[in-house]
Amino acid sequence: LFLCALLASQAAVLLPVWPAPTGPVSVGPSSMLVSPALAVTGAAQWPDVAAGVARFLERAFPHPTPPLRAARASAASISLLALVVANGSAPLHLGVDETYSLAIPAEAAAPITLTAATQFGALAGLETLSQLLVFDPGTRTYAVEGVPLSVEDAPVFAWRGLLVDTARHFQPLASLRAIIDSMAMAKLNVLHWHIVDAQSWPLESPSWPALWAGAFSPRERYTTDDVASIVAFARSRGVRVVFEVDHPGHLSSACKGYPALCPADCAWDAGANAVPLAPANNATWRMLADTLAELAALSPGEAFLHLGGDEVDATCWELDAATRAWVAATGLPGGVGAIYSVFVQRMNAAARALGRSPVRWEDAWTALGTALDPSTVIHVWLSPATLGNVTSQGYRALYSYQGVYDDVIGYQNGWYLNGLWQPWQQMYDVDLLAGLSGGGGSGNASARALVLGGEAAQWGEEADGSDVLQTIWPRAAAVAERLWSYNMALNSSDPGVAARLAGFRCLLLGRGVPATPLNALQGRSPPSGPGSCLTQ
Amino acid sequence: LFLCALLASQAAVLLPVWPAPTGPVSVGPSSMLVSPALAVTGAAQWPDVAAGVARFLERAFPHPTPPLRAARASAASISLLALVVANGSAPLHLGVDETYSLAIPAEAAAPITLTAATQFGALAGLETLSQLLVFDPGTRTYAVEGVPLSVEDAPVFAWRGLLVDTARHFQPLASLRAIIDSMAMAKLNVLHWHIVDAQSWPLESPSWPALWAGAFSPRERYTTDDVASIVAFARSRGVRVVFEVDHPGHLSSACKGYPALCPADCAWDAGANAVPLAPANNATWRMLADTLAELAALSPGEAFLHLGGDEVDATCWELDAATRAWVAATGLPGGVGAIYSVFVQRMNAAARALGRSPVRWEDAWTALGTALDPSTVIHVWLSPATLGNVTSQGYRALYSYQGVYDDVIGYQNGWYLNGLWQPWQQMYDVDLLAGLSGGGGSGNASARALVLGGEAAQWGEEADGSDVLQTIWPRAAAVAERLWSYNMALNSSDPGVAARLAGFRCLLLGRGVPATPLNALQGRSPPSGPGSCLTQ
Repeated sequence: LFLCALLASQAAVLLPVWPAPTGPVSVGPSSMLVSPALAVTGAAQWPDVAAGVARFLERAFPHPTPPLRAARASAASISLLALVVANGSAPLHLGVDETYSLAIPAEAAAPITLTAATQFGALAGLETLSQLLVFDPGTRTYAVEGVPLSVEDAPVFAWRGLLVDTARHFQPLASLRAIIDSMAMAKLNVLHWHIVDAQSWPLESPSWPALWAGAFSPRERYTTDDVASIVAFARSRGVRVVFEVDHPGHLSSACKGYPALCPADCAWDAGANAVPLAPANNATWRMLADTLAELAALSPGEAFLHLGGDEVDATCWELDAATRAWVAATGLPGGVGAIYSVFVQRMNAAARALGRSPVRWEDAWTALGTALDPSTVIHVWLSPATLGNVTSQGYRALYSYQGVYDDVIGYQNGWYLNGLWQPWQQMYDVDLLAGLSGGGGSGNASARALVLGGEAAQWGEEADGSDVLQTIWPRAAAVAERLWSYNMALNSSDPGVAARLAGFRCLLLGRGVPATPLNALQGRSPPSGPGSCLTQ
Repeated sequence: LFLCALLASQAAVLLPVWPAPTGPVSVGPSSMLVSPALAVTGAAQWPDVAAGVARFLERAFPHPTPPLRAARASAASISLLALVVANGSAPLHLGVDETYSLAIPAEAAAPITLTAATQFGALAGLETLSQLLVFDPGTRTYAVEGVPLSVEDAPVFAWRGLLVDTARHFQPLASLRAIIDSMAMAKLNVLHWHIVDAQSWPLESPSWPALWAGAFSPRERYTTDDVASIVAFARSRGVRVVFEVDHPGHLSSACKGYPALCPADCAWDAGANAVPLAPANNATWRMLADTLAELAALSPGEAFLHLGGDEVDATCWELDAATRAWVAATGLPGGVGAIYSVFVQRMNAAARALGRSPVRWEDAWTALGTALDPSTVIHVWLSPATLGNVTSQGYRALYSYQGVYDDVIGYQNGWYLNGLWQPWQQMYDVDLLAGLSGGGGSGNASARALVLGGEAAQWGEEADGSDVLQTIWPRAAAVAERLWSYNMALNSSDPGVAARLAGFRCLLLGRGVPATPLNALQGRSPPSGPGSCLTQ
């Protein structure tokens, strides 16, 4: 009755669903039981949908229901879920249709209907349905409040990512699968796999077999088969995998197996983030091109490769005789100072030759600006205002501003999960479009269309398999709702938002996803005393 | 060759297996491949063994192996595991036969053989075998080093427990299953389920339906079906579930649904650990008896019930007029000061009437001593010396000394995992038998036989589903090895112990169990910087 009186847009926000649906929602005055022995039609012909339904049934009905009680409840329960999926084997790509319509009737004889253009919309709708089911422990029944209920839903941003760093610490396959599974619960759809960095090179390269000598240990390595299995696992859950090979800095781990890839006259070691690769060695260029080609082959159908490009310190190049000689021999305009640009341009071209649009950290934009090919996507992390500069020049962009925690400058909200000082509230209150020029805070339509989305970034310096999920959740959920729903009329001080997120945290815990308290002193802090998942 | 030269007892310690096997071990000079398509005989007729084999195959061979490579390796690989299980449906009880013999041959044509009297021995042997398999990422093969290899193994202590507290925070079923699964990896075999306490009463009681009004929320409740499912899950993995209903203190959550169970004149609330139940209300005694009977029914075949009994403050009883009147009316010798003993004796008798031996915290021994029925098991947590007192009087005992962290007294090692200041080294170096009288540090044979074992205790004040596994692992593994192997010739300063435990931590991470770094500043601290699971 209370829900009835609300406008549809408010109803969407009040549904106990995270992230909040974006389309029209209507809710009725009743509640309706749903049988845990729910039959499902329309899934069998689509393997990914059928697998999603199996996961749905397990998650939506987590409590054992003894036959006697089940029988007593079944007469009054909805017992059928009718899926209508136009194409349940659609290729996964940026912008693939994720919309769905869900309708839950007010009578037991009618089915729940879930309609979607693709399997990815169907999976999103199943997630929404699973969040609407409330278990009553006393009667062992599951109910949906507010029937007849209908939801139409579609994401605002197509690129809803989580960066995971497997170089500062190795993340076992089990960790990666758990991360991907949990991402899908919040409708995140891009795993940005920062797979190598200065500290370790866990990745097998068939053409450069000594590269993974840069792994921490043999047991901390990914075979190409491991990687392919993760890509397939993610794809079946609607999650694209975008690989990053960050260079020319952040890659000295490659030099453990091939020392000549690093400048001979520099003091480098695995762990020296800023020391760049050696441009004078042809092997450097071949290694990069081969690695990109191998990762492209491991992510078939994907349109992007992330090439990094941040935090390069040219001092090493200045110090290195071979690099200076190479600069002189090639007659590079700008001298050593231009080497960075050569790396960016040559390897961006290599990515394009593989059919991939290069993604580069903001640093490349600062150095090259509109000299970059228009296909380049700029990944903002240093300054939200860069988003405006980039899009005003017609380039596409991603948002992952790191945030600032500084006694002098003060706090600025961002999306780096490893910034433990940033509570969920700060991450939620980010308006990723605030840096766009024109059209008020959120930019004009053409600039806005160039913002593909963004990513929460889980850098791995202090996160191994023992704490990575705690660092991600529940704060990544704040990012996920911004990217799916982008309803800036809501902010973290709205009690409804906090209550809905608390419910989502309890739901994650119930599924075995270790989401830390919302009132944690810092990201991943333990609860400070006894209490409920709903209030901590 | 190196391994060859070692004595068998040293070999057992050097095998990369945690906990270290206790029986004769012999290792040969070779290594042998084992096919991930291992066929298994002797399991099909025993459902629990067959399920254990399925889990084993998934854990032991976690990497995808493409057909081409698998075919190349298969000719030279062991392809058969022959299980010989005398009784694969043995009832689970304290002291059930967990011994096994494992033999891994040096030729591909011969099978691996695993022989056990019960399914529990078979599961232990499968765990050992899974830890011996080393993946080579380059060739996608799995090998065992040191073949021909034979292991005989059996635990020293029969009660190898982990206390889990689901009252200070609710632990969802998914958490409990993950905890139990991980316990079995370290061959822990008792889940001491501290299911209710002053802060919350999550448990359904059919005969006292308002008790779970003391739950934090409806979603933080266990139905009896939930509980039964956890007991069955644990049993299938060789883990007994021993329930605790701590009383007469630590139970004021019961008074949320039934206020008259608490003394009317006391200031109590849910959360007041020490405030005791009301002896003057007959309902108190009926509620306790009914709850114990219901939990006994939920753990069929189990011989113990934990009745708690710690930290009772009689002040409340002194303050309460009805209690004073009851004391006067019953003519209780000792007056109010004797109420605690009445609770202990009456409810211990109730447990015995259910066919269960009562387990009581040390406080009951301090108060009652040999007035306790000889069937009573004393659970030591305050003073290791109590173990000597208890056993010298012929009583059985469990060890869970809490440890001390005090600037004045100094540190004393114990087994409370929530004592985050205790690193694994301190927990490992505990000699649980040190408090026994006679026969040097480890007691004479008759006293020693009365020590059933011990438990690592994971009190839940600061542990919900977001951090409970991190608080448990890897430190509970230190306790697990002491209880399984009890080889006091080893201590934590032995580099071999640390290396083997580091390997076990990496193994846990590989299986998705979040075990924190061994060099963590505090229990469950994150890694302090980039690095390998083997060195952090």
